[in-house]
Amino acid sequence: MTTDIEIARAATLQPITEVAARLGIPADAIAQYGTDKAKLTAPFLASLADKPDGHLILVTAINPTPAGEGKTTTTVGLGDALNRIGKKAAICIREPSLGPCFGMKGGAAGGGHAQVVPMEDINLHFTGDFHAITSAHNLLSAMIENHVYWGNALEIDQRRIVWRRVVDMNDRALRQITTSLGGVTNGFPGESGFDITVASEVMAILCLATDLEDLQRRLGDIIVAYRRDKSPITCRDIKADGAMTVLLKTAMQPNLVQTLENNPAFIHGGPFANIAHGCNSVIATKSALKLADYVVTEAGFGADLGAEKFFDIKCRKAGLKPKAVVLVATIRALKMNGGVAKADLAGENVAAVTAGCDNLGRHIENLAKFGVPAIVAINHFTGDTEAEIAAVKSYVAGLGREAIICRHWADGGAGAEDLAAKLVEMVEGGSDRFKPLYPDDLPLWEKVETIAREIYRADGVSADPAVRAQLSAWEAAGFGNLPVCMAKTQYSFTTDPERRGAPDGHTLEIREVRLAAGAGFIVVICGQIMTMPGLPRIPSAENIGLDEAGNVVGLF
Amino acid sequence: MTTDIEIARAATLQPITEVAARLGIPADAIAQYGTDKAKLTAPFLASLADKPDGHLILVTAINPTPAGEGKTTTTVGLGDALNRIGKKAAICIREPSLGPCFGMKGGAAGGGHAQVVPMEDINLHFTGDFHAITSAHNLLSAMIENHVYWGNALEIDQRRIVWRRVVDMNDRALRQITTSLGGVTNGFPGESGFDITVASEVMAILCLATDLEDLQRRLGDIIVAYRRDKSPITCRDIKADGAMTVLLKTAMQPNLVQTLENNPAFIHGGPFANIAHGCNSVIATKSALKLADYVVTEAGFGADLGAEKFFDIKCRKAGLKPKAVVLVATIRALKMNGGVAKADLAGENVAAVTAGCDNLGRHIENLAKFGVPAIVAINHFTGDTEAEIAAVKSYVAGLGREAIICRHWADGGAGAEDLAAKLVEMVEGGSDRFKPLYPDDLPLWEKVETIAREIYRADGVSADPAVRAQLSAWEAAGFGNLPVCMAKTQYSFTTDPERRGAPDGHTLEIREVRLAAGAGFIVVICGQIMTMPGLPRIPSAENIGLDEAGNVVGLF
Repeated sequence: MTTDIEIARAATLQPITEVAARLGIPADAIAQYGTDKAKLTAPFLASLADKPDGHLILVTAINPTPAGEGKTTTTVGLGDALNRIGKKAAICIREPSLGPCFGMKGGAAGGGHAQVVPMEDINLHFTGDFHAITSAHNLLSAMIENHVYWGNALEIDQRRIVWRRVVDMNDRALRQITTSLGGVTNGFPGESGFDITVASEVMAILCLATDLEDLQRRLGDIIVAYRRDKSPITCRDIKADGAMTVLLKTAMQPNLVQTLENNPAFIHGGPFANIAHGCNSVIATKSALKLADYVVTEAGFGADLGAEKFFDIKCRKAGLKPKAVVLVATIRALKMNGGVAKADLAGENVAAVTAGCDNLGRHIENLAKFGVPAIVAINHFTGDTEAEIAAVKSYVAGLGREAIICRHWADGGAGAEDLAAKLVEMVEGGSDRFKPLYPDDLPLWEKVETIAREIYRADGVSADPAVRAQLSAWEAAGFGNLPVCMAKTQYSFTTDPERRGAPDGHTLEIREVRLAAGAGFIVVICGQIMTMPGLPRIPSAENIGLDEAGNVVGLF
Repeated sequence: MTTDIEIARAATLQPITEVAARLGIPADAIAQYGTDKAKLTAPFLASLADKPDGHLILVTAINPTPAGEGKTTTTVGLGDALNRIGKKAAICIREPSLGPCFGMKGGAAGGGHAQVVPMEDINLHFTGDFHAITSAHNLLSAMIENHVYWGNALEIDQRRIVWRRVVDMNDRALRQITTSLGGVTNGFPGESGFDITVASEVMAILCLATDLEDLQRRLGDIIVAYRRDKSPITCRDIKADGAMTVLLKTAMQPNLVQTLENNPAFIHGGPFANIAHGCNSVIATKSALKLADYVVTEAGFGADLGAEKFFDIKCRKAGLKPKAVVLVATIRALKMNGGVAKADLAGENVAAVTAGCDNLGRHIENLAKFGVPAIVAINHFTGDTEAEIAAVKSYVAGLGREAIICRHWADGGAGAEDLAAKLVEMVEGGSDRFKPLYPDDLPLWEKVETIAREIYRADGVSADPAVRAQLSAWEAAGFGNLPVCMAKTQYSFTTDPERRGAPDGHTLEIREVRLAAGAGFIVVICGQIMTMPGLPRIPSAENIGLDEAGNVVGLF
């Protein structure tokens, strides 16, 4: 079988100037990174403000399982298909994180014949955005420590420094560390730790900021520590916001690459989908909407987490009006949601597929609550049977929706033309009815309750009184109008990753709440969230290298 | 007064394709990073192998003082001047480190009218080389820890892990840390610490490797830890060398930018000048020599450290044959070497200048030992008097050399034309007589003794018996043919930074020796060497930001 990297390498890339030209972007409006990657320049971005917007399409999925759903692949395939049927379409996806590429996760550049290229570059350093975020984050860390070192005029309570450090590498040894050992010149010993770069609030900020001025304001708002009296100290108090903005100046410009079929792809930003909102940057999405008639984007994890945050955080704050949702499912993943173990996925099992459709159906119901029409994409895998596919189509039809089989993995854009055609029909015949799930002015606790009830179908929400007190304190401090960013397992509607399908009657237990004052949301943590992954027993790094021709091998 | 950043911003940059064309580099042989930065592609670099080499000129300096010497500025000015007098010349300098830009150090892109541009980019992320080095270094750190975590099949003695971590940020809190706290899933608690990226052995390796194959071999040779029986464990044992090479693949390609006068400048690599050899990359220097008739490069610190390592490590290992040396001095720095404090530099003081010439004279004598002709460049500062300049010229003439006044800071290349003309005369009338100071097969201890005697003019070398035993052990293990890399204060020929001028009769005390098996040298540490700087009381980061027009301010 041909691997993703082999397919990617066999592709004929167009000069990025030609890809840009198809969106009406002149050559002097991009800064090239080699012949196949570019950033849109800031003056060009500013010049787009008055142009009309294209149609925004969200690709989301059922709850993920180890069987795989193919959300990015479907986003790429749909974008290619829209171009094939004559629409000016672009896709907007997230940048992959470097660290996990050396663990066990493959890259995040799609797969099969629905990929973005150059995939090695995209999966590795790309245009350096994540490195810039790492630098900006760690500059702030160094400046906080330095402030304390030189006399602590702001009276930071060292026990209450909440700003950690980041590195784009899976290094479990750095999760919890003691710093400033070794004597007076190294500072005051204290506790710290590293998260992976995608978990940085700077990443979330970059992805929500509308321009450099907004970026600096948000960076300045980051709460980095508290005093003994618990009053907050911000990044602005530390005077790091200007230098951080300078470090992020180029990273704020969206990156343009191409799909295997030479269609434009914006890949920009990549916040965690648990403690952050899991979407590509607002600036990329908004720019793409000015340049294309159709913009296909995706959100992290399943629709319960990803789509909800896309709507309630990104669209609400950026004023985006999505026109349709594509809900991706695979027969294999439906079987797992229907109770089958990964080892038992081979062979036809219509009953399991039907049982797993409960998960699909729940997401379809949920998506209707945002006022956006949905369509189901069955991402075809070799081995799916006609009877299994028919079962899904029939189930979805019973809910008044349509499920379309998509073969973009095997056939590229041609394999998703049916989906594209149906989608165009839906969008062009439809009307703007998007609305977030809850209003800005709902109390924070009730925002969580609304999501728990409407999306997770929980009977209730529980939390330590300290959590409720904290939410009230933030409301009193003027943060009550922020949306909430739910951090829970992506594998279930509940907080128990083993409960697949469409469970109800559970309680959502909040473990902790955090204020991301710069990003502009309250993180509500339900369960254990890992912000620094480790490497597996045999990390994929051991097999990554250059072959004799100088090609990258082992990276997929 | 116009600042460096204002002068840089007022420059008219040529498209980098045009700068490349002047060296005969076709447009498809470079990967552009915007319109003003590029990397030479690997196939093009390989195609140069059979071309003849141009003349290599080293710019070095007297011992640095807080008054400043202007080595990079002179390198840039001389390159521009050579172009002005009709020579096809290029310069090769080091990339600046990001972290120190936020402390108190200015950038490292020259100054006045002798700068390389775009200076903001060069001083910040540039083309991402240092970020790639940071990633490669920290991947190895994570893989070592991960190996121990998953059962430690190699039997690493955790107390003897010698591979630390790096970050390109001045963060003193990370100098010495305890890792893997917080429980079983975070690994085994241990000690570690961060150095600044330029201190990474990966940086030294990248700067000495001749191609990707050599790079991977050297990376594999890095010793990362020892067993209880003290047998070494290498990066190759950890199986990190392939993935690290992939991470460094693009970083290995030299960067091309331009001077304010639109002449080609290669800026590539930047190892520390104390625990490493302090020169730009071999691959950039060798490529430049294939493309230009004159290549002007520089080495870190003063000639005692920088030039010695340039000759004995870089030139020896890369087979380079430098044709001439420019020794940079300023009247102000000579005064400080003559015993004047920085606060007292204003006003004519011929006696102090003459006294300080002892330092200059010592370096001139030393340089003769490498068989390379030297010329002195007096880097002119406003306030230097005619009498002071005459005193230096007369002193240098007494040694049979010539001192040329250079005004490139104020006048650009035109200000260094005299120097360029004299240099061409020296080089074109001269012969190849370069030789390193000591042969490869001299015992390690005697290599140190030779440098101490011939360059530092010490009476002897002292060290703990453990140090001598360690050197003998390395010789027995096959490392005896490596050159030594001296790490000592740059401010004096001795190990006492206060002893300016031309001291003798001192003893060189070795504190520690380290084996850089990948870079291919033995580091001999004399005195305290700081590999992770801190930020000052008022870091320059506090004043760095964007102005209303989006320009970077506060970075200089």
